[in-house]
Amino acid sequence: MQDRTYTADAEPGDTVTVAGWVHEIRDLGGIAFLILRDTTGKIQVKFEKEEMDDDLVETGLGVHRESVIVVTGDVEEEPRAPTGVEVTPASVEVLAEADPQLPLDPSGKVDAELSTRLDNRTLDLRKEEVKAIFEIRAEILRSVREAFRSLGCTEINTPKIVATGTEGGTELFPITYFGREAFMNQSPQLFKQLMVGSGLERVFEIGPIFRAEEHNTPRHLNEATSIDFESAFADHTEAMDACEEVVRAAYEGVAENCQKELEALDLTDEFEVPPEEFPRLTYEEAIERINATGELDEQLVWGDDLPTEGEKALGEDVGSHYFITDWPAEIKPFYIKDHDDDEQLSTGFDMMHPRMELVSGGQREHRYDHLVEGFEQQGLDPEAFEYYTKMFKYGMPPHAGWGLGCERLVMTMLGLPNIREGVLFPRDRQRLSP
Amino acid sequence: MQDRTYTADAEPGDTVTVAGWVHEIRDLGGIAFLILRDTTGKIQVKFEKEEMDDDLVETGLGVHRESVIVVTGDVEEEPRAPTGVEVTPASVEVLAEADPQLPLDPSGKVDAELSTRLDNRTLDLRKEEVKAIFEIRAEILRSVREAFRSLGCTEINTPKIVATGTEGGTELFPITYFGREAFMNQSPQLFKQLMVGSGLERVFEIGPIFRAEEHNTPRHLNEATSIDFESAFADHTEAMDACEEVVRAAYEGVAENCQKELEALDLTDEFEVPPEEFPRLTYEEAIERINATGELDEQLVWGDDLPTEGEKALGEDVGSHYFITDWPAEIKPFYIKDHDDDEQLSTGFDMMHPRMELVSGGQREHRYDHLVEGFEQQGLDPEAFEYYTKMFKYGMPPHAGWGLGCERLVMTMLGLPNIREGVLFPRDRQRLSP
Repeated sequence: MQDRTYTADAEPGDTVTVAGWVHEIRDLGGIAFLILRDTTGKIQVKFEKEEMDDDLVETGLGVHRESVIVVTGDVEEEPRAPTGVEVTPASVEVLAEADPQLPLDPSGKVDAELSTRLDNRTLDLRKEEVKAIFEIRAEILRSVREAFRSLGCTEINTPKIVATGTEGGTELFPITYFGREAFMNQSPQLFKQLMVGSGLERVFEIGPIFRAEEHNTPRHLNEATSIDFESAFADHTEAMDACEEVVRAAYEGVAENCQKELEALDLTDEFEVPPEEFPRLTYEEAIERINATGELDEQLVWGDDLPTEGEKALGEDVGSHYFITDWPAEIKPFYIKDHDDDEQLSTGFDMMHPRMELVSGGQREHRYDHLVEGFEQQGLDPEAFEYYTKMFKYGMPPHAGWGLGCERLVMTMLGLPNIREGVLFPRDRQRLSP
Repeated sequence: MQDRTYTADAEPGDTVTVAGWVHEIRDLGGIAFLILRDTTGKIQVKFEKEEMDDDLVETGLGVHRESVIVVTGDVEEEPRAPTGVEVTPASVEVLAEADPQLPLDPSGKVDAELSTRLDNRTLDLRKEEVKAIFEIRAEILRSVREAFRSLGCTEINTPKIVATGTEGGTELFPITYFGREAFMNQSPQLFKQLMVGSGLERVFEIGPIFRAEEHNTPRHLNEATSIDFESAFADHTEAMDACEEVVRAAYEGVAENCQKELEALDLTDEFEVPPEEFPRLTYEEAIERINATGELDEQLVWGDDLPTEGEKALGEDVGSHYFITDWPAEIKPFYIKDHDDDEQLSTGFDMMHPRMELVSGGQREHRYDHLVEGFEQQGLDPEAFEYYTKMFKYGMPPHAGWGLGCERLVMTMLGLPNIREGVLFPRDRQRLSP
């Protein structure tokens, strides 16, 4: 509709054609108001029954809520209208009549369960505060890509159908690929590493990952969006620097471009861009601090993975984004490099939000012999990964990188109670449709 | 490596640490040159054997091609060097020694089959002209996203694991999803339509699509990247306008930011940004013009789909990007709206490059009854798509959109002979790894 004016742009004195959904009709007898909603906001349409054509009044006031209509008319100032202006319609056209029985109330007056909302995302996303989450999500992706560009990264797309998973056969969804067994990729890890050995050197990818995890928790998804970074000639500390920059860029982008959305989510006051440097705790310091909180029944000892309650206690203790570095080598994957001066200690790191882990990264093992050994130690057949390992024989530079869960970033940034709030159509054990 | 200087930034008078791959060693007896290559270019490293430490000379000249090394030394002007400067090394460190038997020659002196190149993408991408393709691909994605932003679109991510495909059960890869049958999505079509009925109104998505097509041609892929656009309150002509803008933006971005890459591909002279408007031919005009070329053995009649040779003949005849509009309704999918004044005529359109189809789009059927009828006519069970159809009962505005094949855009823009040249790790009937 070339001649359409967004409701937010309707100014007193204009004759406009506005289009959108019937948000509400308030009939006061001789006068009635229709609130029309579009992507930019809402506008009041006034029906003075005695002074208007009967057909016009009937069309405008006879339509059900959430129907799609087009209104042409003059805009006038009206201090009592929600946006200070109102339209006196010269014509009203119904483009799509809505069924009066809505499965979900987009005005938000009636609360709905998350599962009802997800079944009816189209209606759910007509709510300002839900729409705001996805406008912010889009801004996060935009500003993250811009940050990667400033870091000199080239965007890549790696295959989602693969012959072997990154970390072996568990947690993979099997596909039938022209009669052959294949899998949906659980991480671009191996592919992005292959790219840092190419002329690209520094790359990023934002794309879907698939994990057949049995978890069904408020912070796990079986299909998620992963934000991946990998750089040649970088060690784990430089990868952490890049991580700080990218996460901060996401917050800065939202602060700069999404004030209206933060307001819709009632977050204007508490929204804060994290500081330039995130505290870097060693794993050893982390378990000491967790033990000191007294929150765990049993004290952690060196070599333990951090339990969820431990992460939570530490997160509350630190109170900001932070890194955990220098993990025991044995609990990090084979492709993470150990410290040269201590093989028990890994260069792997996690970047944590007080609520949960957001990023996992590290310097990678770039030495062919060590890498093949790592596969064997992890119980994986190096032959099945030959397409990957063999490139390490032809000049693979030292490199480091990380993967950041997009939905966890959205969830923690906006304080969402459930990760599914940040995904249009989440996939979990139960949910495969819509 | 915080102290690293890219070879392109090394200036006479500097003391630099450069890192990269050994591109070539030329030993002239008393003097030898090592050409070091990094992501920004190449630099000459000079070894004057008599005047240098033996260990240094041995390390620098004893290393195999494509090994990764770090060189620290002083930069001096040297007009005979490829970049006009050379480094006299004070130290050379080998970070990764390459096997002397390379499966592919990154200097490009020895030609390799495409399949060998794809098996060894890491090495293949050390060639300037191959790297250029993927730098350009990344710039295309960047500028396309910026164009979508100017068009007021919100970026979305829709699920790749689905219970039902867009156009039914054929050409879908089946997945086992926690014991249930599911599929990899062949198009975000239905999901993006659901979003235009939400408060987002206008959306785009760039993501993978999966098609179990048996085709094995130079222009088909089984996993591809789709660039999707969908807008509420738009008809097919407005969708075509947006298509022109987005495709032009891709060309403009490349013209502006990829001169070096175009040079590497020897395309500087012939690269042209398409004009603002692409000719719009009706289907009827298209078959007439194809028939007039005399290239087909049999004349096309109304209702025929356009055969590949017909597209080719027409492409040569038109000689630029163009649209084909007003297709027979029966050969367009059920979700495309027919013209109100002629039900035999579809609002569907294709946007063509002289070599092949790039875009498929149209105004969508937004009327619930017509949509359900369309499902039945196509032999699909509307019940299986209820998650989609039911939203059309609750106020679905008129809308239009299109899908653009990213790889085809790259391929046609750069004149690549095979679509696989524009994908890092292509997937086809034979190729599942790397």
